[in-house]
Amino acid sequence: MAFTKKPVTGMKDILPAEMELRDYVLNLITETYRSFGFSHIETPCMENIGNLCSNQGGENEKLIFKVLKRGEKLKIAEAEREEDVVDFGMRYDLTVPLSRYYSNHQAELSTPFKALQMGPVWRADRPQRGRFRQFVQCDIDILGDPTCLAEIELMQATTTLLGRLGFRGFRVCFNDRRMLKAMASYCGFAEKDFDQVFIILDKMDKIGIDGVAKELAEAGYGEEQARRYLDLFVETEEADDGLAFLGEKLSGVLPEGVAENMATILESVRSSASVDFDLVFDPTLVRGMSYYTGSIFEIKMPELSGSVAGGGRYDEMIGKFTGKPVPACGFSIGFERIITILAEQNFQVPGRAEKKAYLVEKGMSGEGLSRILDRARQERENGRQVFVAWMNKNKKFQKEQLTHEGYGEFEEFFRREWENGQ
Amino acid sequence: MAFTKKPVTGMKDILPAEMELRDYVLNLITETYRSFGFSHIETPCMENIGNLCSNQGGENEKLIFKVLKRGEKLKIAEAEREEDVVDFGMRYDLTVPLSRYYSNHQAELSTPFKALQMGPVWRADRPQRGRFRQFVQCDIDILGDPTCLAEIELMQATTTLLGRLGFRGFRVCFNDRRMLKAMASYCGFAEKDFDQVFIILDKMDKIGIDGVAKELAEAGYGEEQARRYLDLFVETEEADDGLAFLGEKLSGVLPEGVAENMATILESVRSSASVDFDLVFDPTLVRGMSYYTGSIFEIKMPELSGSVAGGGRYDEMIGKFTGKPVPACGFSIGFERIITILAEQNFQVPGRAEKKAYLVEKGMSGEGLSRILDRARQERENGRQVFVAWMNKNKKFQKEQLTHEGYGEFEEFFRREWENGQ
Repeated sequence: MAFTKKPVTGMKDILPAEMELRDYVLNLITETYRSFGFSHIETPCMENIGNLCSNQGGENEKLIFKVLKRGEKLKIAEAEREEDVVDFGMRYDLTVPLSRYYSNHQAELSTPFKALQMGPVWRADRPQRGRFRQFVQCDIDILGDPTCLAEIELMQATTTLLGRLGFRGFRVCFNDRRMLKAMASYCGFAEKDFDQVFIILDKMDKIGIDGVAKELAEAGYGEEQARRYLDLFVETEEADDGLAFLGEKLSGVLPEGVAENMATILESVRSSASVDFDLVFDPTLVRGMSYYTGSIFEIKMPELSGSVAGGGRYDEMIGKFTGKPVPACGFSIGFERIITILAEQNFQVPGRAEKKAYLVEKGMSGEGLSRILDRARQERENGRQVFVAWMNKNKKFQKEQLTHEGYGEFEEFFRREWENGQ
Repeated sequence: MAFTKKPVTGMKDILPAEMELRDYVLNLITETYRSFGFSHIETPCMENIGNLCSNQGGENEKLIFKVLKRGEKLKIAEAEREEDVVDFGMRYDLTVPLSRYYSNHQAELSTPFKALQMGPVWRADRPQRGRFRQFVQCDIDILGDPTCLAEIELMQATTTLLGRLGFRGFRVCFNDRRMLKAMASYCGFAEKDFDQVFIILDKMDKIGIDGVAKELAEAGYGEEQARRYLDLFVETEEADDGLAFLGEKLSGVLPEGVAENMATILESVRSSASVDFDLVFDPTLVRGMSYYTGSIFEIKMPELSGSVAGGGRYDEMIGKFTGKPVPACGFSIGFERIITILAEQNFQVPGRAEKKAYLVEKGMSGEGLSRILDRARQERENGRQVFVAWMNKNKKFQKEQLTHEGYGEFEEFFRREWENGQ
């Protein structure tokens, strides 16, 4: 078969400069979450196909790269459907694997279990600019803690991380699925319509309140109902304390304790912040995945559209693997997005070793070379990065290339001088 | 479909303690090779299936996990053969991807290019103890340097790494495919038989010289020929300087400069060593892959069977992608094997942060909790790892669990005291 130079369509090779940045960010993530007591764990990149096609993954289940059966189990000519030839699939997120991992190892893990996962996931999306079919996800989750301490620590740790990456003035938007539902219910929407109503509400920051009103009408909801709903958002926004306002207004519809729980989260995260950011209650925040059961949150940068991190509480998912409910709350950090932002800002990785290049004239004797290498060894032991290479014919170009790669100092070794001298 | 708790057969979940060790070793590898001027790079885990089935991968090509086509391109019911339904495959090594990467990006990379790759590879082996179907490979390669400087630096860097991991007294075995061929040719074996002869020779350390003689006879080679061949190994071993002995003995058969090149490598690596190890010329060293064209090497630990690293020069492989020859030499480090050895030795990761756990009585007020979290923040800023959790009913068990995870200090926060005091 023919060789192709390009990677698989929609996937990318990573060049040295980007890799250095990625390594730095991955290490900072590990260090930061470790300081909060999170344990770094890993699962295989493949899962049994049944685990991936369980309706937990929403739309992503349509984007699975599936793995062909092998050996005697594979009967291509007789096969009629995909299921006949597939046994595994590439993971499309880290949440399904975490649920499986926890149910497999619960007895060996502490309670609560604070997990950090970083690794590639695959989605067979239509290839498009800036969106890849293999990309790194970074998830942090707290399993086994039903209280708001989980939310608080996730937000505290994640805002600390963003601060250590140099980000300031970002916005953490916070809501609760139960608040969303209570607002809709209060205004007369039926539970069966919630999903559709929330999909429309989710567009608020793009199409504005009038746009939402229009779409609700188009979807067939009564004008009176929609008006009442949207007024509630306006009143909330105008209130001194929107959360307290809604807590009172929705009493009887909103489950007891939800508003108080949210208030505790807001208060604790704000008072233990290690960096400057806004934490706001945002009643229009929806988050797409159907598995969220409580808090939901998202972090946005003022200068960018979209979010750099998001997550929420999903108390019912892990129970599907373990058989008994396990409360869970997690954040997914947009690793690739952060890398893109930092690269665009021309972020300089701090604490890099001094980079020095030795250029050696061709034909240097073995003995001369040994002495050069020994000198390089000593410099490396003193913390320098030393690149040793033969002097190319076009030495000027060679030095330019190395300068471009960050080599700031050059030492040249010529046969005659080096072999006779020193 | 049903959920399964276990990972895909033959693949493994990684628990926190092992992950901490893996992170440490991966970082040490990156740091060490960076100090030698190697650039860390990455390629996607999938390759176009044509690149993987190109006879470069030897037996591994039979072990590919193949990826099903998607959407309209997939016509299961009409398909007759695997090729009809497959477009990508999981990489089984890092050498084929590196060759593709280099041919794709050569213009953006310096010459010579020193690459470090670390990442998972997949082989659909029959599952067996201690052998996994997804495992991390770690490869270092120097592309574009046809001289022995590449071999010397690879050995210098890799022995430095092993030294930094605490290994001492290991053995680096070194040979050259051209030396192997010259010895066989000198003794009258035909070139077409070399592969088979070398496969038998490769068993020397398992079955001894008599075993090799027996197998050569069974394979139909003349007694005289086999005797001459094995005598040559004995004479070499008995010589003061086996390499010099062969260099002289094989003159006319061995290409010019090979023995001298080997001698330079031995001399330079020995004289620039940063740790105690043996570097030996081993004329029985074969290395399986057919793509090697010159030097071959392998690192063994006295107390273990098998090798922890191995590699060689493969000057003709990358040219198959680029269209013009690119000299190349590389080492593959047995990452998983090193992890297993260190875990068995109960290796303690150095420089770990002090680990402290805060246990908080349930029902603590929001204000009380905020003060606890703020205290944790301060301790973390001072370099400590602080785990905050609610006090479980069985506090003794909770502490035991945390102690097992390395938490050496506990602080308990009781409502009454904490909320009134301080």
